[in-house]
Amino acid sequence: MDTIELLRNRRTIRKYSEQPVSDEMLRELLEVAFRAPTTGGMQLYSVIVTRNHEMKQKLSPLHFNQPTVVSAPVVLTFCADYNRFVKWCEASNATPGYDNFASFTTAMIDALLVAQQFNTAAEAVGLGCCYLGTTTYNAPQIADVLQLPRRVVPVTTLTVGFPVDMPQQVERLPIDAIIHNELYNDYSVEDIHRCYEEKELLPTNKRFVEENGKETLAQVFTDVRYTRKDNEYFSRIWRDFIAAQGFE
Amino acid sequence: MDTIELLRNRRTIRKYSEQPVSDEMLRELLEVAFRAPTTGGMQLYSVIVTRNHEMKQKLSPLHFNQPTVVSAPVVLTFCADYNRFVKWCEASNATPGYDNFASFTTAMIDALLVAQQFNTAAEAVGLGCCYLGTTTYNAPQIADVLQLPRRVVPVTTLTVGFPVDMPQQVERLPIDAIIHNELYNDYSVEDIHRCYEEKELLPTNKRFVEENGKETLAQVFTDVRYTRKDNEYFSRIWRDFIAAQGFE
Repeated sequence: MDTIELLRNRRTIRKYSEQPVSDEMLRELLEVAFRAPTTGGMQLYSVIVTRNHEMKQKLSPLHFNQPTVVSAPVVLTFCADYNRFVKWCEASNATPGYDNFASFTTAMIDALLVAQQFNTAAEAVGLGCCYLGTTTYNAPQIADVLQLPRRVVPVTTLTVGFPVDMPQQVERLPIDAIIHNELYNDYSVEDIHRCYEEKELLPTNKRFVEENGKETLAQVFTDVRYTRKDNEYFSRIWRDFIAAQGFE
Repeated sequence: MDTIELLRNRRTIRKYSEQPVSDEMLRELLEVAFRAPTTGGMQLYSVIVTRNHEMKQKLSPLHFNQPTVVSAPVVLTFCADYNRFVKWCEASNATPGYDNFASFTTAMIDALLVAQQFNTAAEAVGLGCCYLGTTTYNAPQIADVLQLPRRVVPVTTLTVGFPVDMPQQVERLPIDAIIHNELYNDYSVEDIHRCYEEKELLPTNKRFVEENGKETLAQVFTDVRYTRKDNEYFSRIWRDFIAAQGFE
């Protein structure tokens, strides 16, 4: 399929068929993913491949038991990694200065660009993927399960497998809600209404509001899905863990 | 071209031909980019399109005068954006709790996945792109030039245009340097040597070491390109700016 059509028609896949993903296919897709842009050619990332059922069962609760973790043939944890690079510096009579937040940010960007390049490559060969945002929430425990050393921080996870079916594509905001020409064009209340109107009127979203006993769709996000309490709790864990891994 | 081959053969493009990028093409590519995976369907990003020459000249020094900024027909600044979402919450009788580091991280992830999906879409229609890592270094001044409000933080920039020529593809580490099966397999000194040997022996990299008057390639990174002093300086600015934009 044409790449533009592939990207345009993509969707997140959470349910996988029994069809296995061969080691050969996975390695080829990772090789292609590692062609993603990377800061200064440094490739500040590592990918942990989980295929073992017991390992998936250890990871599962850390991803809030989303069924996709245990059911996917392959789970990939993408990590910001300065461990390899620092060890290279130390083996090369060079004094690294990467124990800081800017360096962590650089490695996090590298890891995310690779994850998305992998996602596209996987979809191109008929696989489906699902990102797990829970990776940063429970980063310390995930690092523990995967035995990540200092200077390595998991930033996102992809579950990967062949789709059992093709779900409906989900909605997106109108593109003019997101594009700003030359200067950021801040939103009036009317603009906000225009941006979110279509989303709010979707039958699936109206049902979502009703099922959660809420008045508005936004309340489902603030009161149920992404609450202040959870965000503040996970902020502390995440910030502390980044520092504990050596990025002060 | 087949998507896998497109991804495998991609390279960063820093020099652009005179061929213009039409508004129509740009909008289509952005629409396709906005199909990238996004946390909870929230689309926590904005894209600022810079075409105006004066605006490029204002951005140029903030990207350390990399010539690609002024010469590219289009410059895209990808921002983590909670402003639109919070305004929607406030207009919907919902109380947002997104003024924290975990929420910033979520929006940053969203913005980076979109940037990479845009990069792939652009390459699929024959355009070339270059990421500018300087975006997070000078985020406060970039935000000032683009008039980014509170809750909006620039996380990366892509310069975009038709390539004037196709540069050589740059090297990558052997894939087994990056892939870990089940558990992180930490690197011995011998492993590090195996990972970086090929890179160090490349004539371009040997010349790079010589031109910089260094003993090893790693020293070019630690002493010239990404120094402790710069990293610590930009860490403070970046961390403070994230907080100042409302993510405490």
